[in-house]
Amino acid sequence: MNVLSVDQFSKETLDKLFIKVSDFKQKYQTKEGRDHLFRLQFGKQMCSFFFEPSTRTRISFELAARRLGMGVVTVEDAKNSSTVKGETLEDTIKIVNLYNFDLVVMRHNETGSLARAAQVSKIPIISGGDGKGEHPTQALLDVFTIWERFGRLDNLNVTIGGDLANGRTVRSLANLLSIYDGNTINFVSSPQLKVGDDVKEKLKQDGTGFKETDNVDSVLGESDVIYWTRIQKERMENPEEIGAKYVIDQSKLKIIPEDAIIMHPLPRVDEITTDVDNDKRAYYFQQAENGLYLRMALIDSVLNGEI
Amino acid sequence: MNVLSVDQFSKETLDKLFIKVSDFKQKYQTKEGRDHLFRLQFGKQMCSFFFEPSTRTRISFELAARRLGMGVVTVEDAKNSSTVKGETLEDTIKIVNLYNFDLVVMRHNETGSLARAAQVSKIPIISGGDGKGEHPTQALLDVFTIWERFGRLDNLNVTIGGDLANGRTVRSLANLLSIYDGNTINFVSSPQLKVGDDVKEKLKQDGTGFKETDNVDSVLGESDVIYWTRIQKERMENPEEIGAKYVIDQSKLKIIPEDAIIMHPLPRVDEITTDVDNDKRAYYFQQAENGLYLRMALIDSVLNGEI
Amino acid sequence: MNVLSVDQFSKETLDKLFIKVSDFKQKYQTKEGRDHLFRLQFGKQMCSFFFEPSTRTRISFELAARRLGMGVVTVEDAKNSSTVKGETLEDTIKIVNLYNFDLVVMRHNETGSLARAAQVSKIPIISGGDGKGEHPTQALLDVFTIWERFGRLDNLNVTIGGDLANGRTVRSLANLLSIYDGNTINFVSSPQLKVGDDVKEKLKQDGTGFKETDNVDSVLGESDVIYWTRIQKERMENPEEIGAKYVIDQSKLKIIPEDAIIMHPLPRVDEITTDVDNDKRAYYFQQAENGLYLRMALIDSVLNGEI
Repeated sequence: MNVLSVDQFSKETLDKLFIKVSDFKQKYQTKEGRDHLFRLQFGKQMCSFFFEPSTRTRISFELAARRLGMGVVTVEDAKNSSTVKGETLEDTIKIVNLYNFDLVVMRHNETGSLARAAQVSKIPIISGGDGKGEHPTQALLDVFTIWERFGRLDNLNVTIGGDLANGRTVRSLANLLSIYDGNTINFVSSPQLKVGDDVKEKLKQDGTGFKETDNVDSVLGESDVIYWTRIQKERMENPEEIGAKYVIDQSKLKIIPEDAIIMHPLPRVDEITTDVDNDKRAYYFQQAENGLYLRMALIDSVLNGEI
Repeated sequence: MNVLSVDQFSKETLDKLFIKVSDFKQKYQTKEGRDHLFRLQFGKQMCSFFFEPSTRTRISFELAARRLGMGVVTVEDAKNSSTVKGETLEDTIKIVNLYNFDLVVMRHNETGSLARAAQVSKIPIISGGDGKGEHPTQALLDVFTIWERFGRLDNLNVTIGGDLANGRTVRSLANLLSIYDGNTINFVSSPQLKVGDDVKEKLKQDGTGFKETDNVDSVLGESDVIYWTRIQKERMENPEEIGAKYVIDQSKLKIIPEDAIIMHPLPRVDEITTDVDNDKRAYYFQQAENGLYLRMALIDSVLNGEI
Repeated sequence: MNVLSVDQFSKETLDKLFIKVSDFKQKYQTKEGRDHLFRLQFGKQMCSFFFEPSTRTRISFELAARRLGMGVVTVEDAKNSSTVKGETLEDTIKIVNLYNFDLVVMRHNETGSLARAAQVSKIPIISGGDGKGEHPTQALLDVFTIWERFGRLDNLNVTIGGDLANGRTVRSLANLLSIYDGNTINFVSSPQLKVGDDVKEKLKQDGTGFKETDNVDSVLGESDVIYWTRIQKERMENPEEIGAKYVIDQSKLKIIPEDAIIMHPLPRVDEITTDVDNDKRAYYFQQAENGLYLRMALIDSVLNGEI
């Protein structure tokens, strides 16, 4: 009913969801297909409730809803809304409930808020990001993109690089990959930005192999997927020196296998140079596009009671 | 045509309106009913023009319009919009008119602005709050909630408590109750927050009985309706001491009659404790829900020329 | 495909466009006509992407899209959106593209941004204003208003007054008028606010006659069109003295020919007194209204591939 965490997804649920995403993506390419999609949830109403502004996530959720024929009421910056001040999150959510939306998409700046909201909500809530916690639709679109490209989610060598300490994307992605057998994850970062112990613990439990290194070049050559994230330089001691080591550019393309793909949750700043964009292995724009179809399929599944 | 004040409503108009609200509320519960409502004003366009942000009122108005099949263009914070600065309110409203919306819902921070706007507008305007003046849709949904619960609006004992000096809700509610015969209003507040003389003068004119007291317990036992509002502590001398006297909690529930209802315009802070929420007399969430149906019925009536 | 500059319009394109605007305006006046317009682009989705807030332009674009049956996703203040910070404009536009809107309407505070955006966009972009550069839909609605009133766009005497140095409106309007034969333009301003040399150079090239003067009264009597703009007093040495000379009021109405029209892009502050509003020559409100029909026709033409 709600979508709060990638942990709620089994292989079977993911399979069904991804087949729907593929189907929606294909239908989307023709006028007839788009007309069909527009009728699926026609007239239903979504509340887009953002306690923390997020242009990109909000736009893609709202367009996804509209492409299914839905209407959207937007609250762009609920945290700073005077009417919400002093009121508990629970009361706010109860009232949005009582206004009888069909669906709430909510982002909040405080970790755990989504779970609190879901507790008092009778209508479904999809998380658009939960503080430093999870951002499940990002992880789902990431994994869908890999599934679409390779036709499988097992026996893959996945390099995840950049800021592994602070990115909520990394946690959710590693968790999802650990459902499947035979994957190996290479965590590449400077020592200050290493992946959290909780992530590694989870991988061990699930029997998913992983290694940690600060040597980018040592793992690129064996990777199927290179998942790059932004390094927040203000958190580092020698930002210039270290930053430069973690840039994907033309020199790195020589090491990366021909069949690999390079992903990034975007926005990127300079950790992938723009001259990489036209390489066939650059997959971050297709990945962003898949965000629309993934969110359409997810909304449709939730409203149909399939999730 | 416009909805600016509760004073424009006669018993007959309220009767017709409330029957429509009930009908919409019932239809809303089924898919067929919602489809019917969605066709009522399909394709019409509302401008949601807020010179003062108000998440709650805006959301319920916008969803109400969408549930009737309408589209909405939102201006969330017109007061701070650079394009409006230096321009008179009259010019701004004229231009919104010329853009040919079917309806404008407007809130303004300066009392009297709604009347100025209506003067130059050829298309209907519904007030979403007029400075320290009226907030007519709040009062209408309050009275509808009482009508729905008791099947009448006369011969009721209504206790209104909290900050009576500053709440615009109180004025409109008392005015509406004074249309009907045999009502008694108990105003409960600390001496600093007593109800205004204008309100009392109006009640005398209309022959509606009322009394004032700072003793909460003395009136709760005889009340049909307990309408509670938030006390703005920063306005009081001994906020802690006084505030505590004006809290509805488990101890007050023992005094309140079994058939009474407890209302609140929300948001509440701590003047009603959350352990009251599950009591069957706690009616503030149903009241908030009625806000949607009331606004739907009102928009429909205005667009049909019935109001 | 894109609409970035008035320079892209030939006489033939303008003719076709203006006939469509007239047609839409006429249809708009009846319920049947509005229903017809509502089906033209039903279900298509526009992204309203404003890097600089602009209530007026945004409202009219969004209503135009909705009146054609489209949905709209709004980003009101993209410049201050944290998610966009640090990202290049090109990346931002690419992603909005990948989300697969049917159309982007974009305003930006930096001149040249619209051209940069169009370079990386596969979906059409309509400019809502480009820094100090062009604001093409304003110029188009201005010229449409003249065409509608006089039935022609040649052999007109057009007085353009106010702040000619800083207004982007002036440049685009002069450019459009210079396509047609036999027009004369009178630029009226204080010496500090004279029209730019580039505008005059262009008129010379096109063989369009013009003169410059600071004497308002000397040209009003021969004008068919008086196009007035706001003087930003903070830029002037003797604002009071000079400002007063550039006000259209009852005394100026005595000089202005009976068949002339007075236009203004709005908002006006005090450069046209409100007692002029009811004069039949006051045309600025009709002009604003035409903004809706012009934008509807333009969106429709772009989506149909006619522009």
